[in-house]
Order: sequence, then C-alpha cells, then structure tokens
Amino acid sequence: GFPGTPGLKGERGESAFMYRSSFSVGLTDPVPATNVPIRFSKFFHNEQRHYDDATGKFRCVLPGVYFFTYHLTVYPKDARVSLYKNDRTVMFTYDQFQDSNLDQASGSIILRLQAGDEVWLQVYGEEEFGGVYADNTNDSTFSGFLLYPDITTGDRRR
Amino acid sequence: GFPGTPGLKGERGESAFMYRSSFSVGLTDPVPATNVPIRFSKFFHNEQRHYDDATGKFRCVLPGVYFFTYHLTVYPKDARVSLYKNDRTVMFTYDQFQDSNLDQASGSIILRLQAGDEVWLQVYGEEEFGGVYADNTNDSTFSGFLLYPDITTGDRRR
Amino acid sequence: GFPGTPGLKGERGESAFMYRSSFSVGLTDPVPATNVPIRFSKFFHNEQRHYDDATGKFRCVLPGVYFFTYHLTVYPKDARVSLYKNDRTVMFTYDQFQDSNLDQASGSIILRLQAGDEVWLQVYGEEEFGGVYADNTNDSTFSGFLLYPDITTGDRRR
Ligand SMILES: [Ca+2]
Ligand SMILES: [Ca+2]
Ligand SMILES: [Ca+2]
Repeated sequence: GFPGTPGLKGERGESAFMYRSSFSVGLTDPVPATNVPIRFSKFFHNEQRHYDDATGKFRCVLPGVYFFTYHLTVYPKDARVSLYKNDRTVMFTYDQFQDSNLDQASGSIILRLQAGDEVWLQVYGEEEFGGVYADNTNDSTFSGFLLYPDITTGDRRR
Repeated sequence: GFPGTPGLKGERGESAFMYRSSFSVGLTDPVPATNVPIRFSKFFHNEQRHYDDATGKFRCVLPGVYFFTYHLTVYPKDARVSLYKNDRTVMFTYDQFQDSNLDQASGSIILRLQAGDEVWLQVYGEEEFGGVYADNTNDSTFSGFLLYPDITTGDRRR
Repeated sequence: GFPGTPGLKGERGESAFMYRSSFSVGLTDPVPATNVPIRFSKFFHNEQRHYDDATGKFRCVLPGVYFFTYHLTVYPKDARVSLYKNDRTVMFTYDQFQDSNLDQASGSIILRLQAGDEVWLQVYGEEEFGGVYADNTNDSTFSGFLLYPDITTGDRRR
C-alpha cells in the first residue's frame, strides 16, 4: 500500500524572542528643571526606541511586566526624584547632599503596563531638590526592560 | 504500506510564559525591629503572590535562577542589612548615616533557588543599625524575578 | 494494501531556555589596585563561567542584549569606578567618602554585546579614588545576565 500520511507538525517551541523592549539612557548634563520629566539623552541602548528623549518618557508598546532601575549622582544639592506612571507618582527616592560628599541614589521597580502607558523620572519638589548631576565622568542613568510579555491563550496558539 | 514520513518540526514558540515569578514591594513605615525579616507591605507588583508580607519572605515556587534587588533609604541612623536565603546570610549592605545627610543604599544578587527556598532582607545587628526608613515620599523597596526557569528535558518534551 | 500509519510527530520547536548567561560575584577584600579590572572572586552565581575572576572580566559567549548592575561599598576614601566594554569606558560612578559616613554607590546598564566582547569594572583614576571596600560583612558586587539573545531568522526557522 501507500505510505501513511505525514505525522503531525511538532508543537511550537518555547521562545518569546519577538517580544522585546529595553532601553538604557543617561544624562548628559545636570537636571535643568524640576517638576518636568527628566530627559536622558545619552543612549547606551534603545533599539526599539520605546524611550523618547524628546519627552523624557518610556512609552509601553508591548503590554506586560516591566523592570525599571535608575542610578543618580547627587550633587551639589539634595536630590528628590519620583518615578511616574501616567502622571501619577509611584515611587520616591531622596538623598541629601553635604559639602564634599557627593552621593549615589538609586531605585528599582517592577510594574505591569498596558500599551500606551508612560513611565518617567521627575524631580519632585522645587529647585532645592534638583541635585541630579551628570558630566563627562559622572553618570545618572535610567534603564528598563520587558520582563514578561502579556500573551493571551489566543496569541499563544497562533 | 510503510509509515508516513515524520511531521515537520514545530514552529519556534513563545514560551516560558508560563514560568513567571516577580514581585516588587516597598516599606510603608520605618523598620520597626531588627534581627527579624523586614516586612514590605506596599505592593507595586506581586501577581503570583510569591512574596508574603505576613512573613516578609519571598518563597520560591518555580525552581530556577532569580534576580533580586533592593534600594533602602538610610535615616536617621546607620543601616546594616543582610539578604538571607533559608536562614543563612548571603550578602551584606551597610551605609552610615550622618546628620542632615540622608543616604540611599542598595544591593543586587542572582541566586539559583529550589522550590521552597526563601529569600528575605533583615537588619543585621542591633537597633543602632536599624535605620531603614520609609514614609509617604521616601521609599525603601525590594524586588525580584525569575530570570531562567529550570526546565528538565522531560518537562521540555511534555 | 492499506496506507501505512501516520509518521511521527515533528520535534518541538526551539526553546529560549538554552540561551542563558548570568553571573553574580562579590569582592572578598578592598580593591587592591587602580586602573586594572576589579577582580571579584566571591561567587554567588556563575554557572556558565562567563565571568572569569582571573581577569575580572565578563566575556560574552552568546550574542545579545545584556543587563549589568553593580553595588559598591565606599570606604575609607572616595570611589570612582567605570564600567568598561572592550577597553572603552562606557559609564562612570563616583561617590565621595567622609569620615564616619560609609556610603553605597551603584550603577546599571543595558548593552548589546557580540561574542567575545568583554565587560568589567575598574577604578578610574589614581589611588585616591580606590575606595571600593569589602570584608566579611560588607559586600561590593557585580552581576549581569543575558536579557534577549540575538536570534537570526535563520536560527528561528531552523
Ligand atoms: Ca558620599
Ligand atoms: Ca546623602
Ligand atoms: Ca552614608
């Protein structure tokens, strides 16, 4: 007789390689203004361009769970910074400065985001709290990445 | 007749999506006690509820390689904190406080965990080292996530 | 005669699980020398042995996008550290020390790496900036992991 029909196609493997979003940016100059998003314009990594240095905001394209972290050089005054999600403060970092004692402040957070959600850093308070510093050999940075994309069962079987 | 030819190999999949564990929590008040787990009870993210604020401990459900990070506000005394894994100190962070000079201390670590392993933060030493602070606009946070799940060949083929 | 039985089911597609690279290491002693890679020789995690404590360098085997983070104890002098990628400084962290005020400094970055690329930390400047400290209950750590492996379309369909 004839050979049997071909076997079923194997199951889909395990990957997620198409779901990527990551950025890592730094300040080029001390923060110039308070109560507006901090605009990081030195790019260590921003392949998907989900961080926009014109606005200072990360904008979520792929819904899912994200990790964010920042590391700030505190000089020459106190630094009080908040991480914002859509105009709402989510987390605060405060470090006081003293003469001849430049410091480092940092924070990390994991957040579930929907497409269109925006996340950014902003000095919280008036100019006296604007001591987020950077120059050629002092960095203040902001990084984030998609940790787990939201995948519906429908997507998974597609 | 002869059996048919084998089926085509399956498409590359998107997976590991079922292997998820992540939490991001903060303090609501200054650390009240030393030499016991720090209980973070503000939840930024804890979908799988693998972090338990009743005990202050993250409990591993999915074995694998995990990333943990914490960022502490140091005020109004020194802060000395250890990351514990199952009653064993694994890593230490110490930051001294000086008047009018609130600081930020932080740490990160990657650990392989088995199901049931517990990870937490704890002030290491007496009350003089308990300066881990938080209030409405000052955060101290603890976050972690599953980076690479342990998958046995058996699991993979299942 | 009758047709043969159907062929075997195809193999499962590829998994992301084979693409793994992560390390988490700490200092055992204060940094002994400046302007050379800092050699972290306490291993919290280094399964793939992509971090080499003989050189102090992480060496990329799997091309892709990596996350790196470090947390340094600053004592008893200033600490100025740079993250290097292949003999080029990429990012700087500077924290000043003052008497009785041990500090913590930290940094994070996301970088795309090719196979063979090396990443490490190094005191930037002379001995006066070498205040990166560690002992039995004070850690200074360096961690990193592969976030998104580079997979070519060819690989994906293989
Ligand atoms: Ca300092
Ligand atoms: Ca300070
Ligand atoms: Ca301090």
